[in-house]
Amino acid sequence: MAAKMLLVVATLIALVASLSHVHAFDPSPLQDFCVADPTSKVRVNGVACKGPAAVVPEDFFFAGVDKPGGTESKRYGFTAKAVPIPGLNTLGASHARVDVPRGAVFPPHIHPRASETAVVLEGSVYFGFVSSYPDNKLFAKVLRKGDVFAVPQGLVHFLYNNGTAPAALYATLSSQNPGLVLLADALFAGALPDDLLAKTLLTDDATIEKIRAKFRPS
Amino acid sequence: MAAKMLLVVATLIALVASLSHVHAFDPSPLQDFCVADPTSKVRVNGVACKGPAAVVPEDFFFAGVDKPGGTESKRYGFTAKAVPIPGLNTLGASHARVDVPRGAVFPPHIHPRASETAVVLEGSVYFGFVSSYPDNKLFAKVLRKGDVFAVPQGLVHFLYNNGTAPAALYATLSSQNPGLVLLADALFAGALPDDLLAKTLLTDDATIEKIRAKFRPS
Amino acid sequence: MAAKMLLVVATLIALVASLSHVHAFDPSPLQDFCVADPTSKVRVNGVACKGPAAVVPEDFFFAGVDKPGGTESKRYGFTAKAVPIPGLNTLGASHARVDVPRGAVFPPHIHPRASETAVVLEGSVYFGFVSSYPDNKLFAKVLRKGDVFAVPQGLVHFLYNNGTAPAALYATLSSQNPGLVLLADALFAGALPDDLLAKTLLTDDATIEKIRAKFRPS
Amino acid sequence: MAAKMLLVVATLIALVASLSHVHAFDPSPLQDFCVADPTSKVRVNGVACKGPAAVVPEDFFFAGVDKPGGTESKRYGFTAKAVPIPGLNTLGASHARVDVPRGAVFPPHIHPRASETAVVLEGSVYFGFVSSYPDNKLFAKVLRKGDVFAVPQGLVHFLYNNGTAPAALYATLSSQNPGLVLLADALFAGALPDDLLAKTLLTDDATIEKIRAKFRPS
Amino acid sequence: MAAKMLLVVATLIALVASLSHVHAFDPSPLQDFCVADPTSKVRVNGVACKGPAAVVPEDFFFAGVDKPGGTESKRYGFTAKAVPIPGLNTLGASHARVDVPRGAVFPPHIHPRASETAVVLEGSVYFGFVSSYPDNKLFAKVLRKGDVFAVPQGLVHFLYNNGTAPAALYATLSSQNPGLVLLADALFAGALPDDLLAKTLLTDDATIEKIRAKFRPS
Amino acid sequence: MAAKMLLVVATLIALVASLSHVHAFDPSPLQDFCVADPTSKVRVNGVACKGPAAVVPEDFFFAGVDKPGGTESKRYGFTAKAVPIPGLNTLGASHARVDVPRGAVFPPHIHPRASETAVVLEGSVYFGFVSSYPDNKLFAKVLRKGDVFAVPQGLVHFLYNNGTAPAALYATLSSQNPGLVLLADALFAGALPDDLLAKTLLTDDATIEKIRAKFRPS
Repeated sequence: MAAKMLLVVATLIALVASLSHVHAFDPSPLQDFCVADPTSKVRVNGVACKGPAAVVPEDFFFAGVDKPGGTESKRYGFTAKAVPIPGLNTLGASHARVDVPRGAVFPPHIHPRASETAVVLEGSVYFGFVSSYPDNKLFAKVLRKGDVFAVPQGLVHFLYNNGTAPAALYATLSSQNPGLVLLADALFAGALPDDLLAKTLLTDDATIEKIRAKFRPS
Repeated sequence: MAAKMLLVVATLIALVASLSHVHAFDPSPLQDFCVADPTSKVRVNGVACKGPAAVVPEDFFFAGVDKPGGTESKRYGFTAKAVPIPGLNTLGASHARVDVPRGAVFPPHIHPRASETAVVLEGSVYFGFVSSYPDNKLFAKVLRKGDVFAVPQGLVHFLYNNGTAPAALYATLSSQNPGLVLLADALFAGALPDDLLAKTLLTDDATIEKIRAKFRPS
Repeated sequence: MAAKMLLVVATLIALVASLSHVHAFDPSPLQDFCVADPTSKVRVNGVACKGPAAVVPEDFFFAGVDKPGGTESKRYGFTAKAVPIPGLNTLGASHARVDVPRGAVFPPHIHPRASETAVVLEGSVYFGFVSSYPDNKLFAKVLRKGDVFAVPQGLVHFLYNNGTAPAALYATLSSQNPGLVLLADALFAGALPDDLLAKTLLTDDATIEKIRAKFRPS
Repeated sequence: MAAKMLLVVATLIALVASLSHVHAFDPSPLQDFCVADPTSKVRVNGVACKGPAAVVPEDFFFAGVDKPGGTESKRYGFTAKAVPIPGLNTLGASHARVDVPRGAVFPPHIHPRASETAVVLEGSVYFGFVSSYPDNKLFAKVLRKGDVFAVPQGLVHFLYNNGTAPAALYATLSSQNPGLVLLADALFAGALPDDLLAKTLLTDDATIEKIRAKFRPS
Repeated sequence: MAAKMLLVVATLIALVASLSHVHAFDPSPLQDFCVADPTSKVRVNGVACKGPAAVVPEDFFFAGVDKPGGTESKRYGFTAKAVPIPGLNTLGASHARVDVPRGAVFPPHIHPRASETAVVLEGSVYFGFVSSYPDNKLFAKVLRKGDVFAVPQGLVHFLYNNGTAPAALYATLSSQNPGLVLLADALFAGALPDDLLAKTLLTDDATIEKIRAKFRPS
Repeated sequence: MAAKMLLVVATLIALVASLSHVHAFDPSPLQDFCVADPTSKVRVNGVACKGPAAVVPEDFFFAGVDKPGGTESKRYGFTAKAVPIPGLNTLGASHARVDVPRGAVFPPHIHPRASETAVVLEGSVYFGFVSSYPDNKLFAKVLRKGDVFAVPQGLVHFLYNNGTAPAALYATLSSQNPGLVLLADALFAGALPDDLLAKTLLTDDATIEKIRAKFRPS
């Protein structure tokens, strides 16, 4: 299950990657390192560790943040590359690179278990977060190469490349498994009833059905 | 600012109230009690305390969970009543009562800083949460009087009274200030650009504008 | 052992139930959910998780808080019903319903690992806590239906139905396994020597022996 | 209030001192040191800090653990000496020395916010703790010079010098302000009603009144 | 003092910057944001917050990670640029950019309150950490552009540009104020007695004096 | 691996023992006790527990702090004796006794995961810590029997017996596995390249090689 978990972590991070996060609230480590063991059958809060004697420098290493890659989101256009470092298990951090072509978005989302920061590696992007109810106040900036922006834990944030060149960012999240909730997917890609969604968006079932059609797996 | 914060807390809780939450990760107390001081000018992580000698039993007390009341949401139809107990400052908990008339919803939302549980006091309600990306799996049940349901920290959850009688719930949240993010309000009530929203919902600007009109303060 | 632990948790909560608790200091979750696995042989801090694929809505659900039931305390007269929700594992919360007949008590006790809150469902009850040494100050109120009271972590608290009708409460505790220490049982039901108890209560061995006789398993 | 708090801490520790405690769950420090400022008027969770420039080695120092002293408990016979080190603020620890004459006790008590350990400096003492409900199992040993015993957070523990020589211990507690709850004082020295106590100890009001008389301030 | 603290944080981060860190153990936030208030006179664990109404997007923003700058270490040759984002207060994270010319080092050091990760922006560098006693095992790699390396909390790590081009890295630390301990400076730049240092390095006073001379402020 | 870990813990503590430490940030316990199980094959953050039914008073007990013993450091002259109490698993504490002959040192070191305090049992010793960069300010005192000194988490501290009699201390550390980093060993006993060390100590390779020779295993 540690292996599955690792895959999930990787996928999550990959799709999280358009914003770099730093959240700071995982439990503290109780040894120098507890490197995630993909072969362990033990299921606990977090991931079991491989034997200390088997730990190597590569367990703390990843290459490729300088190049695009990873999973492309057909729905939204961004591409995300996870930074799956098994040595980060118990250290309360994860990272990712995300690439956003012109006109693409990393749509509004939250991380259930982390804060985040992002630094722009290339291009420019409109990045921001929304404060909680009842203000729903927007804190946003157009970021350019070398700019950093921070997002508090659990708040809705987004990335929109409305510029003229592709954008790339490096993200930091403050959990080894921050989780990702894409607002639109949570609403339309799952099994929420149409009438609940209509009441949620203050609209009619037809409009909901029209939007939902686009979220059906093709 | 403690007073302001308390009001914010109260408002948040009031509108949170259709789900009871228990989240468990505020910093630990360093004294028997640190009762929130509404007159303090000190701004810190959390709320400053009143003098221990001034603390009275009423600081740990609230009356009225057995009756509806509090703030009604014109948008969604539910009414929520905060349980503002100053003695809960530093104890990592807050509560609320929520009433949901027939056909009303407490729409999909998350709490940036808490898990939650809810117990049904009256009536029946469809209650559930959605797991994080990429599964967006729905975990939901129709709850009746005396039923309890739990929601993990930061996940999207909702309340829908599709029954034949008014429903009331008692909510517990695992922070003195869990925060509330209503997904639809975060998307449409704030200042997010229409074209970002169109790309987020995979639809056209006209549909976005049509929905957004309903979220404009009248 | 997870199964055993769960039973212990249930029992603890059942007997804890005359006060609802919210304590907020369990370690944070590192995944959407880590539903307690009663079949796991793994013994760790907390409880091991079942496989995510096997998780169902029922893992977050409990029915019956609206009705009395559970374990009756022959010694003190209250009846307590646990709310054993496996999905609360790693979420830092637990709940219980407690019923207290006229004249019965949930005697002075503490929770080693939690704060608490309680809301009165039916009837009325005298509820309070005692601050720590050297003040031993009583913070107490007669609670009626719909009243809520909070108790800081680790402080002595009690429930006494000196009213004219049966009382029922719904309790929240801020740990998945708060633990329960009944002061009188800790003193008299275990193996503490009589002369230590005499020096503790500033009385003679005969008085201790007379009290202790009542705590012997009949 | 920081000053008051410090006094309270000192008093608590002084009377806690017959058991050394290590509890491990205060919030983490956010700077090299936050030395408690006895002159601050700011009331927060914990104690405000003095200016870093004013910090001196003496802020981390205490002398006198090798000699008896401090506050004597007329009720129970032990003498306790606090180790009030302002530099321990935010470090999650406190210490004390306790002296127990022949036949004296540090009666059953708990610490709401700490675990503990104790090492015996001189003499011998019967030391133990009681597990939580429903087992109330006694874990105890006669400790001699150089012996160490540990007590988990929030469990009832005691110290009884039934030996032939005076005993002295050095205690460590895992909070800067662990708190102390003496079971007998919480029951009889405060304002709990006699009939509640009678139902708690399964005895009659006359016996309660007889015991209580000894706990009245003379 | 918040202002002073911020300066210290900035300086620390600036000199920390040759390694990016993620440590995950600051206390959790109790509100959407607690933006550091440089004008506050309140001294607490961490930094006091400015009024929520005064918070602006710039409080979460920093520009210039794409360019060298900041403080140059005359002793070791690296240049570090802090990323002082006031909005990171209570979020448990900080960042920095560091530039290391050919042949320069960021010498062995630890962070008392953080883990870290670093990503290489330009050039190549030999980066590693040493496990704790008794192994003192080296985990190191030559990092090139786009490579990431992680360092567990509190372990000794270093950066050595033994390549042919200047190197630049972006660092993440898991505290808003991780602290920096440069091993050589802690030994030789302070007031440790020569004979203690001689016994520490298993050498003679003359060698210590010869080394120490280089650490005297010129 | 639990057994190995326990050995590591014991060794670490043994060599840590010249300073008593209290650090306070391990995750909280989720049961009365989770006594370390030396036979468990499960590798998690911390150590797996033995079955509650198998727990005995001896699991919380250690004898021998009153006498020297344990491991002698040939390099530095001190002798350290661990206090391996399996019941301290999950309680965030560990202890040790250390003996320092005349002229011997416990050289400058840090604990990656703990604060500490020490009390002097016999003799006198020069004890202190160094604040973090850029101050490197020394906070030190000559301690005599009964004196206590505290060291904040992760700061460099040392012990030097420059007195006329052997010294013994009792140490408390605020983690079940604080870790130990001896600065000189981290620099010279491992595999750091000579030229890096020369640049670190601002000296030449010959001086480094001369020092390093003394750290080679004979």
